[in-house]
Amino acid sequence: MKQENSISIHPLALFAAELRWEDVPPAVQRRAEDLWVDWFGSVLAGQSARPVQSLTRFALSQGPSAGPCEVVGHSATTSPMMAALANAAASHVAEQDDVHNGSVFHPAAVVFAPAVAVAQTIGATGAQLMAACVAGYEVGIRVGEFLGRSHYRIFHTTATAGTLAAAAAVGRLLELTPAQMQHAFGSAGTQSAGLWEFLRTAADSKQLHTAHASAAGLMAAYLAKDGFTGAQDIFTGAQGLAAGMSTDADPSRLTDGLGTRWATAETSFKWHASCRHTHPAADALLQVMQQNQLQPKDLAQVTCHVHQGAIDVLGAVVAPATVHQSKFSMGTVLGLAARFGHAGLTEFDENFLAPETVALREKVSMVLDTEVDTAYPQRWIGKVTVQTLDGRTLQGRVDDPKGDPGNTLTREEITGKALRLAAYGGAVSSAQAEQSVQHLWQVAQWPKVEKLLK
Amino acid sequence: MKQENSISIHPLALFAAELRWEDVPPAVQRRAEDLWVDWFGSVLAGQSARPVQSLTRFALSQGPSAGPCEVVGHSATTSPMMAALANAAASHVAEQDDVHNGSVFHPAAVVFAPAVAVAQTIGATGAQLMAACVAGYEVGIRVGEFLGRSHYRIFHTTATAGTLAAAAAVGRLLELTPAQMQHAFGSAGTQSAGLWEFLRTAADSKQLHTAHASAAGLMAAYLAKDGFTGAQDIFTGAQGLAAGMSTDADPSRLTDGLGTRWATAETSFKWHASCRHTHPAADALLQVMQQNQLQPKDLAQVTCHVHQGAIDVLGAVVAPATVHQSKFSMGTVLGLAARFGHAGLTEFDENFLAPETVALREKVSMVLDTEVDTAYPQRWIGKVTVQTLDGRTLQGRVDDPKGDPGNTLTREEITGKALRLAAYGGAVSSAQAEQSVQHLWQVAQWPKVEKLLK
Repeated sequence: MKQENSISIHPLALFAAELRWEDVPPAVQRRAEDLWVDWFGSVLAGQSARPVQSLTRFALSQGPSAGPCEVVGHSATTSPMMAALANAAASHVAEQDDVHNGSVFHPAAVVFAPAVAVAQTIGATGAQLMAACVAGYEVGIRVGEFLGRSHYRIFHTTATAGTLAAAAAVGRLLELTPAQMQHAFGSAGTQSAGLWEFLRTAADSKQLHTAHASAAGLMAAYLAKDGFTGAQDIFTGAQGLAAGMSTDADPSRLTDGLGTRWATAETSFKWHASCRHTHPAADALLQVMQQNQLQPKDLAQVTCHVHQGAIDVLGAVVAPATVHQSKFSMGTVLGLAARFGHAGLTEFDENFLAPETVALREKVSMVLDTEVDTAYPQRWIGKVTVQTLDGRTLQGRVDDPKGDPGNTLTREEITGKALRLAAYGGAVSSAQAEQSVQHLWQVAQWPKVEKLLK
Repeated sequence: MKQENSISIHPLALFAAELRWEDVPPAVQRRAEDLWVDWFGSVLAGQSARPVQSLTRFALSQGPSAGPCEVVGHSATTSPMMAALANAAASHVAEQDDVHNGSVFHPAAVVFAPAVAVAQTIGATGAQLMAACVAGYEVGIRVGEFLGRSHYRIFHTTATAGTLAAAAAVGRLLELTPAQMQHAFGSAGTQSAGLWEFLRTAADSKQLHTAHASAAGLMAAYLAKDGFTGAQDIFTGAQGLAAGMSTDADPSRLTDGLGTRWATAETSFKWHASCRHTHPAADALLQVMQQNQLQPKDLAQVTCHVHQGAIDVLGAVVAPATVHQSKFSMGTVLGLAARFGHAGLTEFDENFLAPETVALREKVSMVLDTEVDTAYPQRWIGKVTVQTLDGRTLQGRVDDPKGDPGNTLTREEITGKALRLAAYGGAVSSAQAEQSVQHLWQVAQWPKVEKLLK
């Protein structure tokens, strides 16, 4: 693939540049629509959060006083880059946006936000928007898989692979040629950034990460359209992404099943409002409690048998100081699930530091489990061992946490979740949210992408 | 330094937040003014380059139709982020902007560009601007030294440490508290990006790198001013910059001589218009040729005894296809130096592919030299062995290439270089350039930073 002067096009760039909505199998189209509606709820839920408001204020201050692009939930309009920045920031803060297990990558935030901004700018059809977003999902997920587990130990893959996902989606909307798409990949990859270090003090970086990836990827695609060139082998070149930011990169993952395997349809919906690494154990605990009719007061100890990634991401969070940090606390998530049957946004806000939650939190520990770790990240198995106060030892296990492709949400559940998230955000009336969501389901028929919030 | 909840302030954040112009020793103030004027020439030289025009078009399309900030050489004005993006892109393309040897970091592009934009926005004095820029230099250089040689093998340190440098300069202008400065560092470091891979095909990424670093660092500082938090230990945390992007990071370099050792004054001016890694050998070759009264036609073979970094960066460039790529070709640079006594912008443009240059290029090779490699990066020693056609073997050596602190430029030479660069850029009249440069020398007395181009 590496050649001086005569350039060969990477199959992933070719794929992203040529994908049409009619090439996407109907079942995958429907799943893409599911993810689209699910994303909208997350944006509305997030836009009133303090870090998102900071990023939105900044974006609006740097852009034009009016532009072609919606800042969802605001009356202001702005330029594509600034709208992508603000909307992407809002997408990820509620920790309810989607996730692809194998890549540990959250595609919605870094794909839909920049793509909508550009679609509104150029007047794309709904089908063009959705094809571009599927291209973004397929590219971003594969880049995440390629970068591997060693990358994820230090880097927030949604931030790093996110620049590529955003560039692919925006590039497709701008009708980049395959060669231009390859340049856009180069320019996106050389802006890939995002470190997990912020978790240790519950800093706001996660929202900056999705904002940055969306804006940087969008810029990469616009530049490529204008003739700006990028590295031709940003993935596997001697000074490329894998060389700099991974020790177990697998180039075969970049093209794995391209055009036949649809990674978009492998994407999971998040049911609990917490870091995805907590979900398998939470569902396994709920299973034990339901099957044995346990109450929270019956629990003496809960041992979560987890993969290494869960320990890497959650292990640092011992006594969460903020709601956001508590979503990375295995003990808090299991405590809330045990108390309320579901760890949703409201449960976190109102109860993450309640004495009953803290008492449960302190009974929860994690241990590395070989079976779970080996299956990960293709499968996220939940396994817990529960010691009851009356001396019983009980095992819980789920093979597909709720929201995974093997245990997915119905359209009714997705609509319900989106409306709950919109209500949580508080910026729109329930009638407005309902009308918008109903309209969003029709996206593939839209002659032109206009304002999403009706 | 790592503490949950109670946060200790890193000395570098404290330093950057508190530095005043009157704290900077007079000799360092004068050197900072030298670097400031030198930077201005590079911006003017670069703004008509194709990749810079792409980035400038993009920046102007995403910003307001008018704003407080100058895009140097354009009539348009815009917002701080967009001006920083455009001016930083222009600063680095002519390969004539300054370099700090020990960190292999080009401070001017990622410090002056964002700082000027913000100074123009808030109406800072010239002294405030210059203090902020010294803070940017001191921080960026130390971060580059900290990240080390292993980092530079894959990453363009100007791009990665550049986000921190920009955040420090902008943060100082915004009068961030030390705690806010630390948050700005966290937000800047988690956006640090920039891979050398683009060199292989002479892609445009170098301009994107300085643009990105300046815009990302500026954003980090503005966000911190608004209460947005970042990682507290972005440098040495378990999932921070060193963990992700270096194998030989040295934390002691972050605070080395802070307040007594002025890294700003260690910064070198570039005399040849090429990658700095080529300068020591070029000057050594010129020395041999002068001392032995050689003509280009007398040269049979030139062996450059270099440090590993030179091989890493220049080794991939065998047959340069573009002017920009030829600045990373040791053979081309030495060929032009041999022919014209100086490898300047005009020499590159007109002669990088001339048969006489190519013939000389093919006589040049590089070998790793232990002495040179050990001294590097604190000292950039130039050593060449020249074989003449009449069978002589001659050695050349320079300990300080022209422009280094031990062999620096006079203010006359700096003014002359800036005016040559302005003429090369072609966007301004020589009278306008001269008037602007004369005014720039007075920066420390300016009551308010206004348009730089008179």
